[in-house]
Amino acid sequence: MAFLATPAWAQNPADCQAAPTNMGNAGYPRVCPDNTVMFKLLAPGAQEVLLQPHVGESGNGLGEGPFAMTKGEDGVWSITLGPVRNGFHYYHFVVDGLPVSDPGSDGYANSFGTNDLRGLVHMESGLEIPEQGVDFYLPRDVPHGVVQELWYKAELSGEYRRAYIYTPPGYDQDLSTRYPVLYLQHGGAGGERNWVEEGRVSFIMDNLLAEGKITPMLVVMERGVGNMAQTAQNQTIPFDVPTYTEYDRGSRQLFAQIVVENLIPTIDGRYRTIADREHRAIAGLSRGGDQAANIGLANLDTFSSVGIFSQGLGAFVNNPAAWNGGVLSTPAVNEQLDVLWVSNGTVEGGYPAIKTLHDTLTTIGVEHVYFESEGTAHEWLTWRRALYNFAPLLFKS
Amino acid sequence: MAFLATPAWAQNPADCQAAPTNMGNAGYPRVCPDNTVMFKLLAPGAQEVLLQPHVGESGNGLGEGPFAMTKGEDGVWSITLGPVRNGFHYYHFVVDGLPVSDPGSDGYANSFGTNDLRGLVHMESGLEIPEQGVDFYLPRDVPHGVVQELWYKAELSGEYRRAYIYTPPGYDQDLSTRYPVLYLQHGGAGGERNWVEEGRVSFIMDNLLAEGKITPMLVVMERGVGNMAQTAQNQTIPFDVPTYTEYDRGSRQLFAQIVVENLIPTIDGRYRTIADREHRAIAGLSRGGDQAANIGLANLDTFSSVGIFSQGLGAFVNNPAAWNGGVLSTPAVNEQLDVLWVSNGTVEGGYPAIKTLHDTLTTIGVEHVYFESEGTAHEWLTWRRALYNFAPLLFKS
Repeated sequence: MAFLATPAWAQNPADCQAAPTNMGNAGYPRVCPDNTVMFKLLAPGAQEVLLQPHVGESGNGLGEGPFAMTKGEDGVWSITLGPVRNGFHYYHFVVDGLPVSDPGSDGYANSFGTNDLRGLVHMESGLEIPEQGVDFYLPRDVPHGVVQELWYKAELSGEYRRAYIYTPPGYDQDLSTRYPVLYLQHGGAGGERNWVEEGRVSFIMDNLLAEGKITPMLVVMERGVGNMAQTAQNQTIPFDVPTYTEYDRGSRQLFAQIVVENLIPTIDGRYRTIADREHRAIAGLSRGGDQAANIGLANLDTFSSVGIFSQGLGAFVNNPAAWNGGVLSTPAVNEQLDVLWVSNGTVEGGYPAIKTLHDTLTTIGVEHVYFESEGTAHEWLTWRRALYNFAPLLFKS
Repeated sequence: MAFLATPAWAQNPADCQAAPTNMGNAGYPRVCPDNTVMFKLLAPGAQEVLLQPHVGESGNGLGEGPFAMTKGEDGVWSITLGPVRNGFHYYHFVVDGLPVSDPGSDGYANSFGTNDLRGLVHMESGLEIPEQGVDFYLPRDVPHGVVQELWYKAELSGEYRRAYIYTPPGYDQDLSTRYPVLYLQHGGAGGERNWVEEGRVSFIMDNLLAEGKITPMLVVMERGVGNMAQTAQNQTIPFDVPTYTEYDRGSRQLFAQIVVENLIPTIDGRYRTIADREHRAIAGLSRGGDQAANIGLANLDTFSSVGIFSQGLGAFVNNPAAWNGGVLSTPAVNEQLDVLWVSNGTVEGGYPAIKTLHDTLTTIGVEHVYFESEGTAHEWLTWRRALYNFAPLLFKS
């Protein structure tokens, strides 16, 4: 990918479109027909303003950065980048050394990246680059489901937690129909709204249904950590990374319990599900792929299918301590899984590790579906494509 | 209210709680038992950091500000404010003149206030101060409804728009029950998630239902502007206030049409509503109160009740051009309205104007309910209380 290959700064702003990820009526960032993007920040007092693509997104579609912005006489700093890859990209500005969100962008739960050693979840800025001729993740004129926000009490953590549940069109019109359920996890340093906002889960599922490609199902999205209030309480200084790391590890174990012992019974009690293992799958991206594998494979009486998006876990396949005593280390698992899915973006930093997982499973003889998203990195276009191709495989037996 | 009345900076952070409005595991802001609040920002390179309470929130519970923060040797800027009023308060930091969000806070759609002449909607920071012994807006162990996110096509603007619909517990369990609908608007420079996030609408409605105080109803929340994409397109420089103002005015007219011609038919077509004027109400806060009055009173064949929260519109009561030809200027309107509601926070800047509306209506002989929220300003605790007291009056005839 080439940056600033064309003199994009000479484009007429009127030819370019405010990004769909912007707040309300914010005019910038602005996406031009050639996929260059114009950014602006009003910061008259600043000495240096950088645009920093999200560091965790290896092979970021915006480029690696940071990119120095240029100050105008009106105090507005500007930069034009691109052509930028289609899809969704996280970024922020760095003003005289301070990472700040773009006030023109809506907020998306993510970290500011590992470069500033924060490790916490913030409202990061995001940029959607519309993809010409591709609309599988956009609203079409087809029947639309809804995403329901449900607060429920997780007895294990003593907290009220928020879950999002996609219900397909018609869910509330026929009480005789029951549905299988896909549990779908976000990545590290994200949140339970990621799949709704960045992932466009409802549009993808609506479109798949309209195309007749999937069995109607519910999709449940929760926060991939355990007790948040307690951990926040333990944060006595801002941005304490070691505490975060410990938190993340301990919290994951609790989260796994919460899913099986609190969340699933809540969903099965409240929604018209088919409450057996054959009609329950779990998937996730990045850290959520790790969780899908760990929770799913350790609970094969609860789940029959597992989707691992953009997570390289090859080294763990033969580790007896991992994944339910190394369940993936023998083809016997083929009898226990309906679908095992591994997917990858061809330009993501973790590509070799994820490919290794695929190769290792192949060598062992563990049946699985391997999918590559062409030309995309550790980013939402990879995961939208993964979901679009994974969901049709589920609940077919 | 006194600030820094106690040496709060001497408190042990362990005695204080991470605010419930924080992102994930962020430890700051931190609320202490005496309602003082500790803020922190890591900004080693900054020369000056201010904490700026939201300027639009007249009588802000955090104080008027801006408040100068103090730099520590670790590059962390700190301030302790308070005792702070209970409820939800918007704020941001100003770092060497640049308004920035607090990375420890979740993002809440609002403006940065009028002082910086931006006039746009950003992800502003927010702080919730728990109220001892008060939980009408918190999740209790009662049956919980859900908030549904629905994308629908508004033919008038050609856009897919997002609406939120609260459905009470049991909505999807008995297809023979139909429900009245309250249309509930956010304020200026806000968004359609404000009532869900800051307003806690689902908990308030759940609790009112569990207390047997309300008729089960749907609550529909939409964005209070017309065509957002077109207006963003017109923003060729950042933070163009005159354009925003024009946008706001023109857009409001379009929005009023969208509500009546697109949104209501969508809701009545999709949800099990009782689709007549007797079972339809409209309310809103601040600019949304203006919209509730303008849309509701101009469409008395569509709505039977109107709620005006924290909006002073006294001057318009006798203006024949306003409100359906001055419909409020004569007691004849009493026959057309089931509930007309006017409410106020006793310490909000607009108190006199809102009180004038109440007095004027009383003088004319227009029946209405007037409610004052004791000791609160133009803020969410005022509006949570308003909703909690307004909803029980609806759909009783």
